[in-house]
Amino acid sequence: MNEDRVIATYLIETPHPLEHAARVIAGEQSSGTFVSVPGETNELKERFGAQVIKVDSLGVVETPSLPGSKPPKSTGGKVGYRRGRVVICFPLHNFGPSLTSLFSTVAGNLYELQELSGIRLEDLELPQAFADHYAGPGFGIVGTRKLAGVEGRPLIGTIIKPSIGLATNALATLVRDLATAGLDFIKDDELQADPMYAPFVQRVAAVMPEIEKAADRTGKKAMYAFNITGDVDHMLRSHDLVKKSGGTCVMVNVNAVGLAALAYLRRHCELPIHGHRAWFGAIARHPLLGIGFTAYQKLFRLAGVDHLHVGGFNSKFYETNEEVGKSIIDCVTPMFGNYRVMPAISSAQWAGSAPEIYTATNTVDVIHLAGGGIIAHPGGTAAGVRSMQQGWEAALKGVALEDYAETHEELRDAIGKFGRRG
Amino acid sequence: MNEDRVIATYLIETPHPLEHAARVIAGEQSSGTFVSVPGETNELKERFGAQVIKVDSLGVVETPSLPGSKPPKSTGGKVGYRRGRVVICFPLHNFGPSLTSLFSTVAGNLYELQELSGIRLEDLELPQAFADHYAGPGFGIVGTRKLAGVEGRPLIGTIIKPSIGLATNALATLVRDLATAGLDFIKDDELQADPMYAPFVQRVAAVMPEIEKAADRTGKKAMYAFNITGDVDHMLRSHDLVKKSGGTCVMVNVNAVGLAALAYLRRHCELPIHGHRAWFGAIARHPLLGIGFTAYQKLFRLAGVDHLHVGGFNSKFYETNEEVGKSIIDCVTPMFGNYRVMPAISSAQWAGSAPEIYTATNTVDVIHLAGGGIIAHPGGTAAGVRSMQQGWEAALKGVALEDYAETHEELRDAIGKFGRRG
Repeated sequence: MNEDRVIATYLIETPHPLEHAARVIAGEQSSGTFVSVPGETNELKERFGAQVIKVDSLGVVETPSLPGSKPPKSTGGKVGYRRGRVVICFPLHNFGPSLTSLFSTVAGNLYELQELSGIRLEDLELPQAFADHYAGPGFGIVGTRKLAGVEGRPLIGTIIKPSIGLATNALATLVRDLATAGLDFIKDDELQADPMYAPFVQRVAAVMPEIEKAADRTGKKAMYAFNITGDVDHMLRSHDLVKKSGGTCVMVNVNAVGLAALAYLRRHCELPIHGHRAWFGAIARHPLLGIGFTAYQKLFRLAGVDHLHVGGFNSKFYETNEEVGKSIIDCVTPMFGNYRVMPAISSAQWAGSAPEIYTATNTVDVIHLAGGGIIAHPGGTAAGVRSMQQGWEAALKGVALEDYAETHEELRDAIGKFGRRG
Repeated sequence: MNEDRVIATYLIETPHPLEHAARVIAGEQSSGTFVSVPGETNELKERFGAQVIKVDSLGVVETPSLPGSKPPKSTGGKVGYRRGRVVICFPLHNFGPSLTSLFSTVAGNLYELQELSGIRLEDLELPQAFADHYAGPGFGIVGTRKLAGVEGRPLIGTIIKPSIGLATNALATLVRDLATAGLDFIKDDELQADPMYAPFVQRVAAVMPEIEKAADRTGKKAMYAFNITGDVDHMLRSHDLVKKSGGTCVMVNVNAVGLAALAYLRRHCELPIHGHRAWFGAIARHPLLGIGFTAYQKLFRLAGVDHLHVGGFNSKFYETNEEVGKSIIDCVTPMFGNYRVMPAISSAQWAGSAPEIYTATNTVDVIHLAGGGIIAHPGGTAAGVRSMQQGWEAALKGVALEDYAETHEELRDAIGKFGRRG
């Protein structure tokens, strides 16, 4: 049915009737200028026009969410701002299976319209043609698990801290400790890419021998996500260096580089791409503007990330646990068959976060990142890692955290130190 | 003074004291995790920590602009949300002269902080190191004027409409008419890139002969901005085709492709890059979220656009005339000496827009785009173009539009048809 159609769902707010506002969006994003121009025939509109296929009312508010809307001229006194969910269907032949053209169509000038006082792209349904053009995640959940050597439970990971200022020799020492402590996954901070005080090349040279040596000792090679964010040449060159050095993951701040550079990297890439979403708050925090995570993650899965950040339960960030749980489920939900990616959960995480996450999402296909929650554990980093694993064991067994802690020392100590926050 | 510093100005809103919120931003974007971690020494914080250099209070509001903020625990009852402008200084050595690392730092996770109920990046001051790394606009205002053969007045342009659905033979006819009518500049719509019904290669083949033939007749070659927005390979290939075919401009939807792909194209590009900002409303429409145009345009000038869309006076979009005027001035303001770009003004424009724009901005270094305002002119397209020129002549001479229209028929007809809107 939607073989040659893109279906976009929007949350909107408008001083106009909902149906009118929906038609304006559809017209703006398929054809239309402020006066009818020659050549804009009815036949052309029928073949190429976007169609409003559903309009659901969600009530009326008194105050507009965003500035710059204009009510219809016929309105005498009081203006109400109608909220609703509208579904619009765009013919694929208008733009073809191109991520950037898709984006320009479903998320372009419509945010500027005076007919709207709120507009948020919530979801997208894409036809198979996109999968034919974009291979999606090169590794996804299955490939990541294989490379990391972890099955049946989350990858337990941490982020290199301090995020800024660590000299390469200190980084080497830290990575040695982390990899020896049994971490499945270690990642650069999103602020840490190719800084002048510790250039990327030197960081790889410092990190990889420690990863390899720890793997020789422990029998398991930690996956280290090197932040290759940068100009396109830098990303390709850095990827090649990581691969050549025996690394098993690269990280990209996906909003900083953008969809086109990410898709380009993906075609070249032989390692999982760990997608960090820094800037996401800017495009998603207002409930009636920008893009919701459900639509967002589909674009970036298609472009080729294998992991994608989703925030954290009870984190220092703005999202509710319900929103984070929904984001986790989004990432592991199939798309074009196998485009499943691993959600990376982070920010103020510790062992006790596990049961709540698992209850809400029913999946273990996640990368669970803790910073202080692991390395500031009273028993040290290895104990911190064990406590995280124990938190998930308790969650999977359906045993209360405190009960499980009775026979698991590291979990007990974690609860003692981190359980009183919040 | 700021040779090794990036200075970022933010508008913020917070339930905390302004100084505290500013320090949280500075800490989040340079170092910090929810508990102190080993290695985060005072010395390191001093060398690498971002510094709050200014905090200006802008009053208190009762309701938070964004969801997800948390007031300090000490607050008993009523919470006020303090607004202020804060200036934060980041050491360049933290990330180096990389656009994507800069973006991740000044516009990254800070949007997610619970300490904030509003955060908008308003301005950036960048050290010379960025100019050494990014060449900026390859053509800018001077180069564009030279290629277009227009001095001392705005480039008068139009956008191919209908934006969707025009077959290539109809496109050829339209371009013939437009180029013959004396337009300086013709551009693809942002929705029009490489559609299935009229592939990019065929569009170039249809357009360029008409541009050349019209140039032979009129003695002036219209600048046609071909929308090469797409995957990286597609953009490079399409640029090469345009160049080889004699074209003089390429267009990119800069937000759809992203900073890294744009900078990559720039290094390869031998033509002016016309930057369309579709999606800008999503990141800028809420006054206390995202990014302001002043900061935004600096990033994209650095990445290499030669022209940048700024909306239009009295347009169908949300921005006020004051905001659009400020954006025009931003684009023509020097940066690193010569990184000046031509603002592209569009949406509901006609001859009568000129005096208002000129009064507000005092510049003619703009591309003034009109769609219906030119081709729906009662006297036809050539008369529409003439009316636009006459509008600017009146503005430059300081003569009232109606007075100038007395001796200028095309302007008079334009006023008759378009002057009654609004």
